[in-house]
Parts: sequence; C-alpha cells; structure tokens
Amino acid sequence: MYSFKNDYSEGAHPRILNALIETNFEQEGGYGEDRYTRNAIELLKEKIDRTDVDIHLLSGGTQTNLIAISAFLRPHEAAMAASTGHILGHETGAIEATGHKILSIETDDGKLNPSGLKEALDAHTDEHMVKPKLVYISNSTEIGSIYKKSELEQLRDFCRENNLILYMDGARLGSALCSYENDLSLSDLPNLVDAFYIGGTKNGALIGEALVICRDSLKEDFRYHMKQKGALLAKGRLLGIQFSELFRDNLFFDLATHANKMAGILRKALEEAGVQFLTHSPSNQLFPILPDAFIAELEKKYAFHVWEKVSEDTSAIRLVTSWATKEDEVTEFIKEMNKLKGY
Amino acid sequence: MYSFKNDYSEGAHPRILNALIETNFEQEGGYGEDRYTRNAIELLKEKIDRTDVDIHLLSGGTQTNLIAISAFLRPHEAAMAASTGHILGHETGAIEATGHKILSIETDDGKLNPSGLKEALDAHTDEHMVKPKLVYISNSTEIGSIYKKSELEQLRDFCRENNLILYMDGARLGSALCSYENDLSLSDLPNLVDAFYIGGTKNGALIGEALVICRDSLKEDFRYHMKQKGALLAKGRLLGIQFSELFRDNLFFDLATHANKMAGILRKALEEAGVQFLTHSPSNQLFPILPDAFIAELEKKYAFHVWEKVSEDTSAIRLVTSWATKEDEVTEFIKEMNKLKGY
Amino acid sequence: MYSFKNDYSEGAHPRILNALIETNFEQEGGYGEDRYTRNAIELLKEKIDRTDVDIHLLSGGTQTNLIAISAFLRPHEAAMAASTGHILGHETGAIEATGHKILSIETDDGKLNPSGLKEALDAHTDEHMVKPKLVYISNSTEIGSIYKKSELEQLRDFCRENNLILYMDGARLGSALCSYENDLSLSDLPNLVDAFYIGGTKNGALIGEALVICRDSLKEDFRYHMKQKGALLAKGRLLGIQFSELFRDNLFFDLATHANKMAGILRKALEEAGVQFLTHSPSNQLFPILPDAFIAELEKKYAFHVWEKVSEDTSAIRLVTSWATKEDEVTEFIKEMNKLKGY
Amino acid sequence: MYSFKNDYSEGAHPRILNALIETNFEQEGGYGEDRYTRNAIELLKEKIDRTDVDIHLLSGGTQTNLIAISAFLRPHEAAMAASTGHILGHETGAIEATGHKILSIETDDGKLNPSGLKEALDAHTDEHMVKPKLVYISNSTEIGSIYKKSELEQLRDFCRENNLILYMDGARLGSALCSYENDLSLSDLPNLVDAFYIGGTKNGALIGEALVICRDSLKEDFRYHMKQKGALLAKGRLLGIQFSELFRDNLFFDLATHANKMAGILRKALEEAGVQFLTHSPSNQLFPILPDAFIAELEKKYAFHVWEKVSEDTSAIRLVTSWATKEDEVTEFIKEMNKLKGY
Repeated sequence: MYSFKNDYSEGAHPRILNALIETNFEQEGGYGEDRYTRNAIELLKEKIDRTDVDIHLLSGGTQTNLIAISAFLRPHEAAMAASTGHILGHETGAIEATGHKILSIETDDGKLNPSGLKEALDAHTDEHMVKPKLVYISNSTEIGSIYKKSELEQLRDFCRENNLILYMDGARLGSALCSYENDLSLSDLPNLVDAFYIGGTKNGALIGEALVICRDSLKEDFRYHMKQKGALLAKGRLLGIQFSELFRDNLFFDLATHANKMAGILRKALEEAGVQFLTHSPSNQLFPILPDAFIAELEKKYAFHVWEKVSEDTSAIRLVTSWATKEDEVTEFIKEMNKLKGY
Repeated sequence: MYSFKNDYSEGAHPRILNALIETNFEQEGGYGEDRYTRNAIELLKEKIDRTDVDIHLLSGGTQTNLIAISAFLRPHEAAMAASTGHILGHETGAIEATGHKILSIETDDGKLNPSGLKEALDAHTDEHMVKPKLVYISNSTEIGSIYKKSELEQLRDFCRENNLILYMDGARLGSALCSYENDLSLSDLPNLVDAFYIGGTKNGALIGEALVICRDSLKEDFRYHMKQKGALLAKGRLLGIQFSELFRDNLFFDLATHANKMAGILRKALEEAGVQFLTHSPSNQLFPILPDAFIAELEKKYAFHVWEKVSEDTSAIRLVTSWATKEDEVTEFIKEMNKLKGY
Repeated sequence: MYSFKNDYSEGAHPRILNALIETNFEQEGGYGEDRYTRNAIELLKEKIDRTDVDIHLLSGGTQTNLIAISAFLRPHEAAMAASTGHILGHETGAIEATGHKILSIETDDGKLNPSGLKEALDAHTDEHMVKPKLVYISNSTEIGSIYKKSELEQLRDFCRENNLILYMDGARLGSALCSYENDLSLSDLPNLVDAFYIGGTKNGALIGEALVICRDSLKEDFRYHMKQKGALLAKGRLLGIQFSELFRDNLFFDLATHANKMAGILRKALEEAGVQFLTHSPSNQLFPILPDAFIAELEKKYAFHVWEKVSEDTSAIRLVTSWATKEDEVTEFIKEMNKLKGY
Repeated sequence: MYSFKNDYSEGAHPRILNALIETNFEQEGGYGEDRYTRNAIELLKEKIDRTDVDIHLLSGGTQTNLIAISAFLRPHEAAMAASTGHILGHETGAIEATGHKILSIETDDGKLNPSGLKEALDAHTDEHMVKPKLVYISNSTEIGSIYKKSELEQLRDFCRENNLILYMDGARLGSALCSYENDLSLSDLPNLVDAFYIGGTKNGALIGEALVICRDSLKEDFRYHMKQKGALLAKGRLLGIQFSELFRDNLFFDLATHANKMAGILRKALEEAGVQFLTHSPSNQLFPILPDAFIAELEKKYAFHVWEKVSEDTSAIRLVTSWATKEDEVTEFIKEMNKLKGY
C-alpha cells in the first residue's frame, strides 16, 4: 500500500547516508562542536547571505519550537498563532509546558495578518492577562498555504511597531520556497522575521532543523537552552553532516522541487476530475474533498489522512508528497480518479 | 591527534549505517509507530527477558533523564543523586527546569547507598521542604565505578520500604554490564530498578537511548511526555533501526566489550607504570593521576579531559575508550608512559 | 462617586475585624497550624456535612486555582473551561505558567455541559495533543449565571464516565447558593464535584478562599503544593479567624443574601425601565445593556465596568453588588433610570 | 506555655488593626490600585530616600522570593545561596518549581562573600551547566547574623564585575537594621543591592512584604509576574494599610527595636550563665547550646525549636523574640537559667 500520509515516511536522501558513511570514523568534538556542524552553518549563512545570524541545528520541529519560544519569551509573555498552528493543537501542549500561553487567532487560510494580531493585542490590556509578544507563523502552513513577500512585510512592520517577535516555523520551508506561487528567497527571511527554522526532516534528512536567529537580542546563551531541553546531541555531527550535504549545492531545493512537482501532478489531475479543495495549497500538501464512499475505496490501496468532514457524505483528505515520492505511484493514483464519476 | 576524550567521537558502527541504507526506502509510520521500532522493542524485551515492561526509544541522555524524571514525579517531589551525578552538574539544570529539585548526596565512589539516602530522607520532614521521591543512579557512574548486584538489591529494598522510585541512567550501561567486575545481567535490572535506560549513543549508535519502564504505575501516557518535550522523532525509524541492529544479536555487548578491553590495556599499562587512579574504575573511563608537566606533553599528541587538580603538581585526567577505539592507538599511547619516569 | 465596580471594594465585615482584635495576642502555631484554622475547618465540615473532605485555606482565587489545578494534573494533562472562564482570560496565564494548557469551550451562558466537553474530548485523540483531564467551572459564573443541581449532576456523570476531574471555582459561591434560582446547598457539592472552593474575599473577608477537596486521590500532600507556590501564610490564623467568623453562624450566607437582595432591587428597576440584559444573571452581577451616551452620564456619578460593545450605540455594563452595598445608594442609582427615556 | 518559637506567633500590632477598622468602609480600587497602597509606596520611598525605585507589596516571604527570582532570571540562569539560605531548604523547592536551580555555597556564618561566589562561578564554565546569575542573601540571615555595610559593598562590587543580580531577602530586615552591630540604613540598600524586600509579617504585620526593585532592567512588567503567581490580592488595601501604618512614623523600627531588646536581655542572661551559642547573632534569633536534659525541662514551660544536635548530650535551641514579646515572660524565662548549673 503506497502512502501519501506524510513527507517523512522514508529514510533520508541517499547522498546523506553516503555522507554519514564517508565521515564515520573521523573523530570529532561533541555537542555540535564538530567540523561538520561548523561547515553546515557556514554553508547556510552563504545561502541566507548573512554572516550576522546565529544558526543552531536541532532534531525536530516540536523541539525547535519549544526551545526557541521559551528562550525568547519572559514568563508572562504569550505567543499568538493561527488556530491551525502546529504549536496549538499538535504538540501536546509543549509551549504551555514551558509556561507560556498561546493565543489562538481564527484565520481563513492558516495565515496570520496584522488585523488579526491587532485584535488580539487590543484584547490584552493589562497585567490581569498575558502579554502577547511572539507571533508564530508557519511557511508553508499546516494547510498548505504559503506567505507572499508582501504579507511578511506587513507582518514584519506590524511586529516592529508593536514590539513583537516574529518567528517562522519552517518545517516545510523547502516546499514553500519552491512553490510556483512563491516570491521569497532564503536570503529575504532575515529581513522579514526575527527567527526561523529550515526544516530538514520533512525534506530529505533523517532528522534535523536549522534554527536561524536574526535578531541580536534573541541570540544570547542559546546553546544553554538547547542543552537544558535535551537538544544538544552528543553526536551533533549527525546534524552537521546532513545539513552540509543538503546545502553544499542545491540538494535541499531540488528535493523540495521534486515534492512540489509530484503535488502539482496530483493537483492538476484532481482539478481536471472536477475535485474541489478544502484549502488553496500551492505546496506539497493537498486537501481534496471527496465522497466518503470513494475515500473508503481509495483507502484500500493508499494510505493518507482523512482530514475533516466537509458535508454529509464528503470529506477532505490530505495527500502529501515528498522528496521520495515516486512519479509512477502518483500516476497510478491518478488513474483512480477515473472511478470518481461513479460516486 | 588521537582522542580519548569520550566515547562519542566517531559516528556509528558500520552495521548500523548499513541497516539505515537497506531500509531507507521502505515507507513507514512516523513517531515511533514503525516496524523497526516495534522490532527493536521486541528484541529488547527478549534480552531483558520480560514482556511486561514498556520500552521507549529516545535521542539522548539528558532528554531521557528529564522526560522520565518529570513524568515520574509530582510537582513537590525531588530526586536524589550522588554529587557527581550527571543530572546535578552537567545537564544545565534540565531537571530543575521541569520544576524538580535534586538533592545532592556526597559519596566516595559516585554510588548511592541506603545510608546516604536515609540521611536525606531524615532531613526532609514536612511540607516546608521538598519530598524526596526518586533515586537517580548511573551505571557505570560518571567516575567509572559500577554497581554490584548486592548493592542494587540493597537500594531496591530501601526504596521499596520508603516508597521511592529507583531510576538508573544507563548512558554507559553497556560498559558496566561487560566489566570484569560486573555480576549483573540485563535481565536482572527489572527486578532491581523501577526504570532504566540502555545507552546507545555512547556504545556505537548515532543517537539513541532505550528507556525501560518496569513499574506499572510509571507507564501510563509516557508517549505524551515524550511528545510534549520534543522527543518523538518524526522518523522514529532512525532509533528503531539502530536498536534493532544492536540487539538482533550480540552487537551491543560486543561493542562494550571492545571498549572495556581497550580500557583494560590502558589500565594495566598505567598500573605497571606506577600510576595511581583517582577512582576505582572497572569500566571504559579511567582517571589516572599524572604530573601536570607530563600531562602538558601528552596533550600535544592526544586529546582528553583534564578532570581535576589533585595536588600542587599533579592532576587526574580522564581517558575514555569506546567501541571505535583502535588498539594500535592504545599501544602507541602506552609507549608514552615510558617517558613518565622523567617527570 | 459610588462604586458598583466589584464586590471587593470595601474591607471586611466588622465582625471579622473584631475577631482579629479579640484573638490578636494569643500565641499560635504558624502556617495554618493554629486553633483558628482548625476551628474554621471543623465549622466548614459541619456546614458541608462531610467529615471526609480535606479543607485548606488560601488567600485568593488565582492562587487557589493555580495550586489546585497544578496539583491535580500530570504534566501532559489539560483543563477545559468555558471561553468566559476566569482562568482563561483573567489570570495572566497562571495555569499555563504551571505547564498546563486550557482548552476553551464556547458557551452561550458561561456554563459547561456534557456536549461541549464531549466535543473537546473527541478532538483530542492521541499523544500529539494534550489529554483533557480537568473540567473547570465557576459558580456563579463570570457572567452571573448559576448552575442548577441537575446540570451539575449531568456534568458529574459525564466526568465520571470519562475519568475527568470536576473542579468548581467558587469565588462567588455565596451569591450563587443564595440566588432565588438556586436549588443547591453546600452539602450537595461533595456529591457533585471533586473539589471546589468557597470564596471569602468577594463575600466579606479581607482575603481568603476555602478549598474543599472531596476526591481522595486528590488530597495527598496538598500542603506541599501550597508551600511551594507561596500560599502557606506564616500567620495562617488570619485566614482561620475569618472563616471561623463567617461560618460559626450564618454570616457567610447572610452577606451573600444581602448582595443578592441589592442586585434584585437593581434588576427589578432596570427591567421596569425596559432595559435588556446581556446575560441571564440571578446572582450579584448584572449586565444591563444601555445607550453609550447614557453610560457616559452614569459614569459621572458611578463607578462600574463597561463590559462590552453590543451595538453601534449601546454597550453592556457590569454592576456588582456586595455584602457592603448600601441600599440607599442603590435607591439613588435607580433614580437615574428615569433619565433613560431621554436617550 | 509561652512561646519563643518564632516572630509570627501573634496577630498584628494594634495600630495596624485600628487602621483596618478606620478605613474599612472606604471604597477603593482592587489589586493594589488603591490609595493606601499608593500611600504606603510613597512613604517607603521617602524612608528609602529614593524616588526611582519600584515597590510592590506582597503577602509572604516565599511568595516574594519565588516571584522576584523567577521574574529576574532567564530559564537557564541559576541563583546562588548560602547553604543555610531559606530558599534552599525551607521553601519546598519553590524556586526550582519555577525552573531555576539554586547553587548551594557553604559558609561559616550564613553570609555569602565574593570568594565563595567566585568558586561557584569558576565551576560553571559552559552551556552544559547552569549559568549562575543571581545572588540570594538574607539580612538578618537564617542563623541570626547580619551584614555589615562593607560586606555588602564587596558583594555589590563583585556582582557588578560579574554581571550578577544581588537580591536581599529581608524577612527580618527590621531586626537587622536595628541591631546593635548594624551600620546600614534603609537608604543605603538601593546603592548596595539590585532588589530587596522589607519584611512585615515578622515585624508586626498580619501579612506583607514590600519588594523594592532598584535596578531598572528588573522593573518591567513586574505586576504581570505577581498576578501570574497569584500574588495580586483583590483587596490589596490590606497590604497598603499595613505598610502605611508601619512607615507613617517610626513604628516599623520601634517594633524591631523591641524585638532586639528582648533578645538582648536573653543573650546577656545566657552569656552570664556561661552558655555558648551556635552562631554569633546580634539580632532577634538566638541559638544557645544547652544540655539536652535541661532542654527537656525547658520544653515543659516554653515552646521553641530544637535546632540541631551539637554533641552527645547538648543541642542548640532557637529562641526568637518579636515586637510582641513580653518583657515579663523574658524575665521569667531567664530565671530558669539558674537551674542550668544542675545539668
């Protein structure tokens, strides 16, 4: 049974495994003080085109979010996130476990904008309420949408005016930046957000997220926070080697481009079959709305998430493509759409 | 420059890397719900000879310690540890960051015993003080000593009488169990402690610790704690594959035996050279006391930790061997001891 | 300017101050181990008609909520509350600061019911989300509504079936129990909820809330939690003396009855003037909807909260009466309603 | 049985109770926004002779310590305290419960000095350990000793050089400042420490500690922290009225002077009887060493703490005097010393 369940169903890109083998017997320092980590950071700084950022390699998205947010905030300060935000509903209260409330902001498209933030700020007026301080956004979002440069500029300006920290969860940043609708580059980000991370796990690495801290005041002592939360790997080389491989040339973007291309084929076929989508997603997650009976048939051959009930007899499902998705399998899957008319 | 600095200087045992490659394109469930993790857990249960334990795979020692201890304790309860305990001085207050005090107990040999624990219990009498509840021990300890079966039996009995949780940090459990002085087997542990972990990172894995929860009351909802602290890897297979490889035969013990053998060669040579040791260590960490001037010479060729000042002109250094330590390099190092007389 | 802003604008009922004076020079044990605290607890147990509950005296509502909830929950467990719940929006993230998420449930009347809870439970299915465990209700609620016995029975049954803890914030329990619509008595509560508190601060005490823990499994070591959170007063007698005075006869209920009576006069006059209310409140908080221009006039003579905008040119205000509200002032205020026709 | 157990055995000085009665029916704002609190803060600023400090009124010592320290520190930063420090052993891990480790420093006299601090700093060198940041001292200390101005100057200088926060727990500051050995005044403190509190509870108030924040960078948003930890009393007037009364003239110092005078009579009598003391205490706590058999006799007539075993058949007891201690009772107690020769 082929799976479109997520973008972390397979291992890692073979080049990454090869790099692990090639470097395996080199003796190196522990806890991120190894040549591979240093090299990865240098490569990332080049791609980002900024030497004044701090970069740390971590293992996963929840870990990165909880360490960054708890390091950036004082105890009474809160994060704000779209109601679909990953930190709100899918991280087991990881942020609250560090002591911080997350304010949920309703959105149509999974993206925050100044007016939603302003409403939240206006509702928090004194010391009987938390102080909203950090804006959490994800790109691409949990429902596949992506931020345009102008949208981020508006958020940035609003955040600066209101002394807020703008933080971007980039678990699927690769797919966002390689989207056909994208107008951002990696080097734009430090001018737009205060911190962001570049997701490796969902784009061909075994594990690994690269946190980029752009605002100076957020940089101090960050490795203490990593260690305190159990995120400094003894063999930090494991992260360094992977990011070195992903960014020594264009591999990171190539992998995301492949994932997007596979999603594009699916999207086109679904559209041609007259399928509606729950969300507008120009990235590697698609949310087609299908008859429940048809979904039941599809589930016999394919693995995917049934996302949510849409009407009496239809639901949206989530199809995710990745660096490893096989075009043959996509083609096979599309053939199933022919049967859709029967439902 | 060859390094005896630690047992995580190299990557992973080649069999582990091969296993990663062989399984790489299999699609699997995320977050530890994959066949490799299930298989690793089955293999571990066989080696432990108990089917009623819960086993979880985590990434590192600090992460495992902080999740286990914070999951096991209520807010007002404290851990007790030897003053040399890793959680006390080398984890950046990770346990305190989850809200729990650690009571430090002085020891001669890095090992706790009932009398030290009793003293701590007797000093904590009411609600104006924390309630000591969890006993943290490590085997081997941070200074290389190991627990004998009878010592653990005494601790177990004391803990049961006093309603305490006995938790063993097994970052270097392999070396402990393969020590020439050891009388414990893996299958003894569930009868002796309430939870323990089997360290992979320091015994040939890229990352990975296998937490074994033996006491029923500590098992409930443990995966929630893992997720909340950022420890559920999307590609949990990375951990499952490694532990499957380490435990599908005797590899885990073979690697530890190698590390101990290398330490044994060093120990013998140092003893023959008349060197004293800071601690009695029958495992893969040695703490020889050497003249500072000689240490300075050694540092030109070898990497190691200078552990602590012992007298005006001598210090203890720490030499660590591992699964990857080359016998040739040990032989070379020993030759340096001939020069010791000159100091 | 007379204030209807809240029910804690004055000091304490004179009998309480007299009791402080009369007992002032008796030497007593500290931290709640004094005869007055013991006496208060005995009196409370009599009124509650249960000897098997544990009772603790604390200083304020936020303090009581945060200590109770954090003591009752394990780290991954969450509270559920009506979106108007005090812990959600008016306690500066106090619960989250202890590590626990609060799930917000929309309601019409500030009261939770099984169907709202069920929806929240159904949405939290696995370890990637918090585990809903504690149901926070307040009686009277933040918008003046009160729970009927049958409603609490339904909640209790739902909580038992779903292994949830039912906790009642009784900051204004006096007013609720003395409401003309109430069908509950203090002695019903241990059969309905797992823990609740009886609010003193808003019913005639200087400070003080009496937490009643009914479920055995929640009782253990509670004083440790109080001390750890800074809630054990050295002169615990201050709380004991007050609750002794409030409950040695019917004073507590007499004071609440007075507050409700004053609210009743206001309510009747407002209704007669044709005023609509934002919420149905049979307790000591009223939320009349008035023209903004009229509110502006009222504000020249009276202090009160403007609660929320209702339409283009009307808003709801909050009028709170208390044990100390003077009937003369209420009568004066009502006269203002004659002017309402002009708006 | 007369008690020398502590300085919070009685209620409050009668002037305080009278002030509560006189102000009782004035309507005032809640949560510290009342005229009495404002007045108390003004009076305190005058006594301290500084207008640029921030002052907050809180309920108790543990509450003040935990809120101040957790507000001042970032997550990875630790406090340092003398091993006898109240926060280390007598506050149920309240500081750790906010996430911060406390480093224990051994002292002879309960007082910290630069050399002890330097040793702790030198042992904490990198991100694998907490970062020592706040120095907790108490004056008078838990064993009755007091700081001289020169000692505080040395601590201040050391803290400035090392970028540390110097925080003074003043639960018994009154007794310290009124000691015959004292050379400090209240107005010296802002030049010496970054924050301190003036203890009311142990010097004649029902409850109440006045926290004075001197360093600008520690002031921001402090009321948020108070609210989040449950320390903003709805009837903040209770604190304001008390501190207004204590500081509208010399009452605070008069009360401390009385306590010290009573201790002085006891000290002299004990010295004349040839009794040795466990610590040098020029304040209101005395630690005489007495034969255990004699202590057993004393316990029949007097309440006090047996502090610690000193030899086979002697122990130190703690005698505490207060604003309320009766000279007649002291005289009676002293007569018992005549019997001492028999032991």
